[in-house]
Amino acid sequence: MSQLLKQRVRYAPYLQRLRTPEQCVELFKDGQYLGWSGFTAVGAPKVVPDAIAQHVEDNNLQGKMQFNLFVGASAGPEESRWATNNMIKRRAPHQVGKPIAAGINEGRINFFDKHLSMFPQDLTYGFYFREKENNLLDYSIIEATAITEDGAIIPGPAVGASPEMVSVSDKIIIEVNTATPSFEGLHDIDMPINPPFRQPYPYTAVDHKCGVTAIPVDPSKVVAIVESDRRDKVAQNTPSDQMSRNIAGHLINFFRDEVAAGRMPENLHPLQSGIGNIANAVIEGLADANFKHLNVWTEVLQDSFLDLFENGSLDYATATSIRLTPEGFERLFNNWDNFSQKLCLRSQVVSNSPEIIRRLGVIAMNTPVEVDIYAHANSTNVSGSKMLNGLGGSGDFLRNAKVSIMHTPAARPSKTDPTGISCVVPFASHIDQTEHDLDAIVTDQGFADLRGLSPKERSRVIIKNCAHPDYVDQLLDYVNRAEHYTQKTKALHQPHILKDAFKMHLNLAKNGTMKLSSWDAEI
Amino acid sequence: MSQLLKQRVRYAPYLQRLRTPEQCVELFKDGQYLGWSGFTAVGAPKVVPDAIAQHVEDNNLQGKMQFNLFVGASAGPEESRWATNNMIKRRAPHQVGKPIAAGINEGRINFFDKHLSMFPQDLTYGFYFREKENNLLDYSIIEATAITEDGAIIPGPAVGASPEMVSVSDKIIIEVNTATPSFEGLHDIDMPINPPFRQPYPYTAVDHKCGVTAIPVDPSKVVAIVESDRRDKVAQNTPSDQMSRNIAGHLINFFRDEVAAGRMPENLHPLQSGIGNIANAVIEGLADANFKHLNVWTEVLQDSFLDLFENGSLDYATATSIRLTPEGFERLFNNWDNFSQKLCLRSQVVSNSPEIIRRLGVIAMNTPVEVDIYAHANSTNVSGSKMLNGLGGSGDFLRNAKVSIMHTPAARPSKTDPTGISCVVPFASHIDQTEHDLDAIVTDQGFADLRGLSPKERSRVIIKNCAHPDYVDQLLDYVNRAEHYTQKTKALHQPHILKDAFKMHLNLAKNGTMKLSSWDAEI
Repeated sequence: MSQLLKQRVRYAPYLQRLRTPEQCVELFKDGQYLGWSGFTAVGAPKVVPDAIAQHVEDNNLQGKMQFNLFVGASAGPEESRWATNNMIKRRAPHQVGKPIAAGINEGRINFFDKHLSMFPQDLTYGFYFREKENNLLDYSIIEATAITEDGAIIPGPAVGASPEMVSVSDKIIIEVNTATPSFEGLHDIDMPINPPFRQPYPYTAVDHKCGVTAIPVDPSKVVAIVESDRRDKVAQNTPSDQMSRNIAGHLINFFRDEVAAGRMPENLHPLQSGIGNIANAVIEGLADANFKHLNVWTEVLQDSFLDLFENGSLDYATATSIRLTPEGFERLFNNWDNFSQKLCLRSQVVSNSPEIIRRLGVIAMNTPVEVDIYAHANSTNVSGSKMLNGLGGSGDFLRNAKVSIMHTPAARPSKTDPTGISCVVPFASHIDQTEHDLDAIVTDQGFADLRGLSPKERSRVIIKNCAHPDYVDQLLDYVNRAEHYTQKTKALHQPHILKDAFKMHLNLAKNGTMKLSSWDAEI
Repeated sequence: MSQLLKQRVRYAPYLQRLRTPEQCVELFKDGQYLGWSGFTAVGAPKVVPDAIAQHVEDNNLQGKMQFNLFVGASAGPEESRWATNNMIKRRAPHQVGKPIAAGINEGRINFFDKHLSMFPQDLTYGFYFREKENNLLDYSIIEATAITEDGAIIPGPAVGASPEMVSVSDKIIIEVNTATPSFEGLHDIDMPINPPFRQPYPYTAVDHKCGVTAIPVDPSKVVAIVESDRRDKVAQNTPSDQMSRNIAGHLINFFRDEVAAGRMPENLHPLQSGIGNIANAVIEGLADANFKHLNVWTEVLQDSFLDLFENGSLDYATATSIRLTPEGFERLFNNWDNFSQKLCLRSQVVSNSPEIIRRLGVIAMNTPVEVDIYAHANSTNVSGSKMLNGLGGSGDFLRNAKVSIMHTPAARPSKTDPTGISCVVPFASHIDQTEHDLDAIVTDQGFADLRGLSPKERSRVIIKNCAHPDYVDQLLDYVNRAEHYTQKTKALHQPHILKDAFKMHLNLAKNGTMKLSSWDAEI
């Protein structure tokens, strides 16, 4: 037992339950229901999952030792190893990584994605293990960076669904990560209280804290404490490029206009921003545009937010996960006293809460697979069938934000055509966000403000302002034809020719591009 | 001035602004932005809109005097008269009635439907009249049943969006309805407070009241008081039939099972139920099944709820509108002392609030146009293009409820085939509710519990339990083919053949039935 572990675990009885990862393996049986801590590849358990994977590999148990696995959102490389070994039978609510996506898209993993605010709730309602007699998860494996005097878990860089998981777990295993500094003081945690007893979340500003600083657990449920010596390692973020900077430019202009019109305060409203190069460009753009006293209410923070703090634009940021690169974590730890006053990590039920998002008037920005001409958006399934990562919190934020924005390149390359995939299509091939949710769409081509417009009006604004020039005429042709066609049946509210609605997708599958020779051509 | 009007208007200065409906006509000009009270055909203004319509008809101003019209949801026959006279240029967020649906589907009315909880908010944000210099509605015409000593409006059977409308109106006209008794004491009204100042809604039970009993207005904005002698007249409700009773039977069994499994208390959770024969059958079924101490948190109450009160099953019901038949209103008024203790009408922002729906753990039940095999639902557009009534509160409730249920007949008649329209289709032709929102689908054929299932699993359960027998094989054939097809591209998460996804709709349009000769046949 390391000195550091002894220091971190302030509840002595746990130290008598110390096990090596290998000693935990015997606890796990085929078919069990497991909860893991973690959100967006940080804060997940590492050494215990890896020991189980090793056991499977050593004994050729691939496909014979399978689990129903729930994680707040995505876990780290350990999950990929599980997927590679065919150890995942069922999975929710979000995932990242080639092996797990392959397992889902090859039909081996029963994956369902649920709004991240709702998934932990439904878990506590017992909705996901209705067939189990005890109606509990068999094990939750939760990463801690310290343990309080009463045995409560101080998480690391992610709170996620851990509060809900431990509240519906038969047994709990805690991985105490001593490779990373303790995150004590960074969390504000609300434990689940279910209807009819649930109370309002009292938060009326991003920096309000009314929860507890650690996840209370029943110590009798904790069957093992395991020391972990492995830090989170997330890949470098994609830097901004001209395309994403163009998008950011349109967004910044919009914000300026809204402030000028009196529809937003000068420091805007709390921002929700995703992961990726567009999100990074937006954050950079906000800093360059001299916005001050910004606030962030989001689900995940990435390195660029540290820049925004450091240049004085950002006052406070809260999320359920702080997904930093190793360099980012160094910056955080080296300036802990400063950053820890401006940061707060909450459970994902709270960070993604419709109640709070709506109350605060959050500005939500997300990247879709594609949008359609009437402002529906596909966030999950490429060409309608192939799962990318999952819904995440996009629905939580876009449904409830004061201003709901989808940002996307106007076109993406296919294998054979640099603009072979239009991100504006007649009919989204999968719909996760509806026309009733989105206020604006922005691409590198321009900004479409959709507020108060009818579907027909929206179609023109989206195509003219947002579509890639290679597709503007083709899309206008579709709506003109659709309006002509639906005139006959007096169905002009949202004109479609269902026969042609997916023709661009079909052409992509067959000919490698969404560019049609003609709308009449058979594919 | 009638004695009754003098009694009802307790703020004397208003009585000096008394006008006849005809004297109001001069205030209205082409292109204005108007707000009307009203929700689900009750509580809307009547005599002023009719006087304007008369003016248009008398002077052949059809199409030359057009308005941007906002109502909480649907208004009464006066709105139909406006639509017939081509007086509506833009309309949101919900409508009922042939003339207005015709105007929308013929492309004359720019209609957009927005979540009913969100529409009034967006109105106060100024999102819907961005081009106007004063950023205000020109007039709100609000029906009152009385006026308080400080000039505040005591609404009638609907609160709807009136609180938000008066808060962003340049001028206000109040129709005091003396044909109906005063509804004083029935309302609990929260006035809008916008971010960053918004506070939690404190309601933690259906019968909590923390608002005000009348809508405060700035009396200087009130330019006219008009006496109205016209009662609301809504049509008789469609009675339950064998189909709807079968649906109700499946639902009641589900509720019993949930109670037995400990996932719901014995008095269930607060119920949200819509309008129509299925909703009526469910309410009847709950009464017959001896559920006691039920509560209702919904957007609109209809006559059947009075039965549920009278047989002792229902403790308390709250909504934004009480849409009763003339006989229903008689029952209400004749037993006012009793019913008024058990009823509360709130603004639609509150009745449909995600915050409160989620906190209370509401059970939401709604009827779609169609559902698809992966549990998306179409609530608005027939065959993708033709607007029915609008989204209403379906998204507010289904996204946030503890249990979200869609109930629908398995099939409906087409013109030539008694089961020509399957309400279970491969791909919904318009998507308002996503797969991430629905927990269960129930038809007269059976109940599909979808909680925790992957899309592929869902498809089998929905088809086998819910589809009409005439379509089971055809739909199973689709998923089998889709699974085979997507195997090639490793896209088995949500298997679709986009080429065939709308084939059943296309066949309906061409051949009058969704029954295909074969999936291979060209249509």
